[in-house]
Amino acid sequence: MKSLPNSANQLIKEFSNLPGIGRKTAQRLTFHILKTDTERVSNLSNALINIKERVHSCKICYGITEEKICSICKDPDRNENIICVVENSYDIIIFEKTNGFQGKYHVLGGTLSPLDGVGPEELNIESLLNRVTSGMEVVLATNSNVEGETTALYLTKILSKKQIILSRLARGIPIGSDLGYMDSATLVRAMEGRTSV
Amino acid sequence: MKSLPNSANQLIKEFSNLPGIGRKTAQRLTFHILKTDTERVSNLSNALINIKERVHSCKICYGITEEKICSICKDPDRNENIICVVENSYDIIIFEKTNGFQGKYHVLGGTLSPLDGVGPEELNIESLLNRVTSGMEVVLATNSNVEGETTALYLTKILSKKQIILSRLARGIPIGSDLGYMDSATLVRAMEGRTSV
Repeated sequence: MKSLPNSANQLIKEFSNLPGIGRKTAQRLTFHILKTDTERVSNLSNALINIKERVHSCKICYGITEEKICSICKDPDRNENIICVVENSYDIIIFEKTNGFQGKYHVLGGTLSPLDGVGPEELNIESLLNRVTSGMEVVLATNSNVEGETTALYLTKILSKKQIILSRLARGIPIGSDLGYMDSATLVRAMEGRTSV
Repeated sequence: MKSLPNSANQLIKEFSNLPGIGRKTAQRLTFHILKTDTERVSNLSNALINIKERVHSCKICYGITEEKICSICKDPDRNENIICVVENSYDIIIFEKTNGFQGKYHVLGGTLSPLDGVGPEELNIESLLNRVTSGMEVVLATNSNVEGETTALYLTKILSKKQIILSRLARGIPIGSDLGYMDSATLVRAMEGRTSV
């Protein structure tokens, strides 16, 4: 915008590049920054630089860490005989928030997508095969969409040769939801996967 | 979150401090930053520092500028006999986007709010009085809420002693809106302020 100083237009542009932040929100954030103490703004500025400098992939699970090995892989209290395979490192956070899983993780780094040139070599699959030993359980926790299902199918194929327990997240009715709002694919899966009480 | 590196937790905290950004969005933004090129992240980081270093208030209108006088105050094509008085510098952007106003602005820097200790001395009112000369028009464009109306009333009182045209933004039905959704205060004002066709 012509009537704004360059540095303000620049910050609006940079904020707009973030996902889910449109031009109007970017403007609002920029004017918020103008009103904020310089010290607090430089905290945000430094945090952006620090995370890029310090964080990288864990050598074992490809989750994020500031060290060679992440805190989950290093934790002796976690069951290393069960590996939950997820698409991205963010998925680890989603499971960790639940406090309902005490095993380890393996981050694929995406899903198979031949059209985008993502084949098995582009994902962290070989390292997964190297981690998996007889008697282990591997939980395939990819997303429940076409790409996630395709990737899970591929992993099932190559992992089923090993002497392991292979599982997939349960599909069914989300807790607290109304049957009337469920799609029929979910209802069919929920019926198929019914459990005895 | 325990399982996240410190620098990631730090960035989540800093993002959460921004208005309208909750913890979940802050996490999503942080993981986006992890996937983004270091160069683009440092562009955002630098833009934050630059805006704080370079931008300050215009000596005349208190809008934002990187120089002493802002581009609007310096523009010889704009009518300097009409001053639009707004609460914050962001309001200038809102009017500038419309391309419907060719006068100058004056930023009060807030609204009168005795409970918060904001009296006339805390706002840029004296500088407004110094700018206003006989024959000018002053448009009071404070917000249409209690604080904005109170401030407009106060300004009306002190400006009415001068030989100027004093106006207030028209109040009425927003363009494109349905009468059935209007509150009665707006309908009453729209009726009172009806214009001949």
